[in-house]
Amino acid sequence: MSSEKHFLWEFFDPGTVVIVGARSTPGFGYQLPIWLQKRGHGDKVRLVNPRGGEMHGLPVYKSIGDVPGPMDLAIVITPAPTLPGILEEIAQAGIRNVIIESAGFAETGKEGVALQRKCREIALDKGLRVMGPNCVGVVNTENRFATSEVIEDALKPGGIGLVAQSGVFGSILLDSFPSKELAVSRAVTLGNRLVVDESDVLDFFRDDPMTRVVVMYLEGAADGAKLRTALERITPIKPVIVLKSGRTAEGSAATSSHTGSMAGRDDIYDALFAQTGAIRASGVAEMIDLAAVFDSQPLPRGNRICILTNSGSMGAVSIDVAVREGLVAAKLSEDTIKRVRNDAPAWMNVKNPLDVGPSGLFIKGFEAVLDDPGVDIILMFATVPYAVIESFKAFGINAETWIGPLAELRSAAPEKPMVAAAFGHPNWFKQLREICRKDVTVLEFPENGARVLAALARYAAFKKSRNT
Amino acid sequence: MSSEKHFLWEFFDPGTVVIVGARSTPGFGYQLPIWLQKRGHGDKVRLVNPRGGEMHGLPVYKSIGDVPGPMDLAIVITPAPTLPGILEEIAQAGIRNVIIESAGFAETGKEGVALQRKCREIALDKGLRVMGPNCVGVVNTENRFATSEVIEDALKPGGIGLVAQSGVFGSILLDSFPSKELAVSRAVTLGNRLVVDESDVLDFFRDDPMTRVVVMYLEGAADGAKLRTALERITPIKPVIVLKSGRTAEGSAATSSHTGSMAGRDDIYDALFAQTGAIRASGVAEMIDLAAVFDSQPLPRGNRICILTNSGSMGAVSIDVAVREGLVAAKLSEDTIKRVRNDAPAWMNVKNPLDVGPSGLFIKGFEAVLDDPGVDIILMFATVPYAVIESFKAFGINAETWIGPLAELRSAAPEKPMVAAAFGHPNWFKQLREICRKDVTVLEFPENGARVLAALARYAAFKKSRNT
Repeated sequence: MSSEKHFLWEFFDPGTVVIVGARSTPGFGYQLPIWLQKRGHGDKVRLVNPRGGEMHGLPVYKSIGDVPGPMDLAIVITPAPTLPGILEEIAQAGIRNVIIESAGFAETGKEGVALQRKCREIALDKGLRVMGPNCVGVVNTENRFATSEVIEDALKPGGIGLVAQSGVFGSILLDSFPSKELAVSRAVTLGNRLVVDESDVLDFFRDDPMTRVVVMYLEGAADGAKLRTALERITPIKPVIVLKSGRTAEGSAATSSHTGSMAGRDDIYDALFAQTGAIRASGVAEMIDLAAVFDSQPLPRGNRICILTNSGSMGAVSIDVAVREGLVAAKLSEDTIKRVRNDAPAWMNVKNPLDVGPSGLFIKGFEAVLDDPGVDIILMFATVPYAVIESFKAFGINAETWIGPLAELRSAAPEKPMVAAAFGHPNWFKQLREICRKDVTVLEFPENGARVLAALARYAAFKKSRNT
Repeated sequence: MSSEKHFLWEFFDPGTVVIVGARSTPGFGYQLPIWLQKRGHGDKVRLVNPRGGEMHGLPVYKSIGDVPGPMDLAIVITPAPTLPGILEEIAQAGIRNVIIESAGFAETGKEGVALQRKCREIALDKGLRVMGPNCVGVVNTENRFATSEVIEDALKPGGIGLVAQSGVFGSILLDSFPSKELAVSRAVTLGNRLVVDESDVLDFFRDDPMTRVVVMYLEGAADGAKLRTALERITPIKPVIVLKSGRTAEGSAATSSHTGSMAGRDDIYDALFAQTGAIRASGVAEMIDLAAVFDSQPLPRGNRICILTNSGSMGAVSIDVAVREGLVAAKLSEDTIKRVRNDAPAWMNVKNPLDVGPSGLFIKGFEAVLDDPGVDIILMFATVPYAVIESFKAFGINAETWIGPLAELRSAAPEKPMVAAAFGHPNWFKQLREICRKDVTVLEFPENGARVLAALARYAAFKKSRNT
């Protein structure tokens, strides 16, 4: 841990906030003051709009200079051309931390590039730490502070730190988190990165006690050398999952018109991520699955996986992916085999993948594999045809009696990462999540579970190599 | 179309069905008669159990020979060792079509292999068409007939024909379909394939007017040459999506203990699928996405894709995947550019990917791209941060007014396949599905949309090459 507090703390937990461009009609800046009031930050909020008057029960100051008292953070939502003047005013008022949410800069072409350059000169000259433009700033689930109303009450505090260049993407991703049971520490959207960039955020997350894993969406590095250094500093401590667009010429062109990024040659990024141990996701879907598992599961001691399944097909599909991704099929110990075989029906093969079929031996297999010293990682596929479950309801059999108390039993092997996959009927998926709680990560598709567990094992090996 | 009816019709639509091994306690065979009665097939059902008596208001015959009248299909649920005798009785009674749902054959080792071989000899000798053992038979959504109670009322009739080796997998997959808006024509689970195999089912689907696309889960071909012929016959007419496990030695070993399949060398299968135009899915998730799009979208005339998005990030991620998968980024026509630019704000770049941001020009862009002769395929990413949507509700703005009536407008270009992706808040996803109806396929993740649309274009090119 650094002894000095990272400057981004003043963005995540400011004492006072001035909203420049507060408005009383729909659009950016309309809901934000109400939103902050609802979440207990009303007394920190100062509003500025040239019209003055009152809004949401708060006085509206005509200029930043009129606001009494010190201000820790300015959120600017005024049209792009006003920004040079406003940045001067902000500096004049002694504010150092600024989030520009307005769009209309480098992402829009020549004039925008010039405007952005001018703003950057002012910011650097005055020592302003500017986040944005073209972003929605920060979210902090710990104190329920955010600089944009794009956060739901449903968003849960947790271990995932998010940094995204795009404000819309960051917001949508957060929207998807509660239904996927993902929980966030803090989130940042960077936009065009006038001053603050992804490397600053990585440095922040490195020492943030709440953040266990970082998820980063990047269109191009603001500063390649700085990013390399930041990654080298954080990955021996915490995993960083990266989704980087601009893999193709077409994708690169798209990013330049989006956040004004230079995507750069993709092979250079591939090498950078490989060398620094960052985990590159192939898409949004994989990024979400990686985040879920990295936040909730321990790093495995080795790469020997056991697959426990009640569908032989899903066992075969999963072991294929696991092995292709570099995991090794664990050889079950004699003790494991004996324990399962004791109660197994004639048709059951006791090996890995351990396909228990409809034998009801799922939990017996699970317990044996938990104890097996030759197994580092467990992937389970646990879905029963829903009509069968329904028909057994009458006999008092439900998901918990069928599969067993996975969450409780799991504590016998806290060092082994575990994922349960269960596509099929949505109700079954929900029931499985209930019995797995936070202890076993539940994903929909088994092949994705295998892929993510392989990434977890690779990262574990990387981390070990950097810490010995 | 063949002039003769395929023999599998007697499995999907039998006049009378005898259930051998009907029972009054939970387990396979317990619910099935009730299930058939509920769905209007009660008068077709005959029950056999050595105990005799009555069950579910139906007489139970002590042997197959005691059942009066002709029987079109026998469903056998008795223990494996009884099968040789039962098959003899079935042949004696003049029944030709048999589904053995019991397990305990080649998948369990040496003795099971011998038992299965014996059953096969009897079947071939007596001319029995046997499906299974170790399967759950068929589902027909058209007449609501099924040979297992593993089908929900929610399952909708549609264009997807399913053939899976594994009964559990087939059932779970069907369980997942309603929530993914997938609709099925007919489904078959093959199990150990004593007689009926995947090639027979492909032949059936080829001429089945209800089936538009076939989804096949395979552990290994029952007969490689027969499968090649069947694929060669069907793929010029209908697409076949294949999930084939046994890619690795470990996966192959898993399949042999599951359905007793020999998985074979994976490169041979890769070549077989490539040569015959079958579409190989990388996993269950992709198989489901492929099925959704192939069943509901037309084949494109070319491979030029336009991406329309309100998230620049998702535009960049999608075009990357599209281009890497072989699609070409369409060059927008001058007319398209003019139509959109007319109303576009200064910050908006009018190009492909067409990122409309928060401009509200989504539908304007959509209409222009529909008309653009240089665009063959459309992928949309349409998610707005949910808090924004919620805050706009008060002003009468909802998903339909925000995005527009996609389903109606889509009819202007019936020849262009269209996918809309929309991860984020589940409620938004639901709303988007409502405005897209069956006309635009909605998937969760944009990169998956791009991947599937590329597969659609590849199949379109294959089909054209085989039909000219």
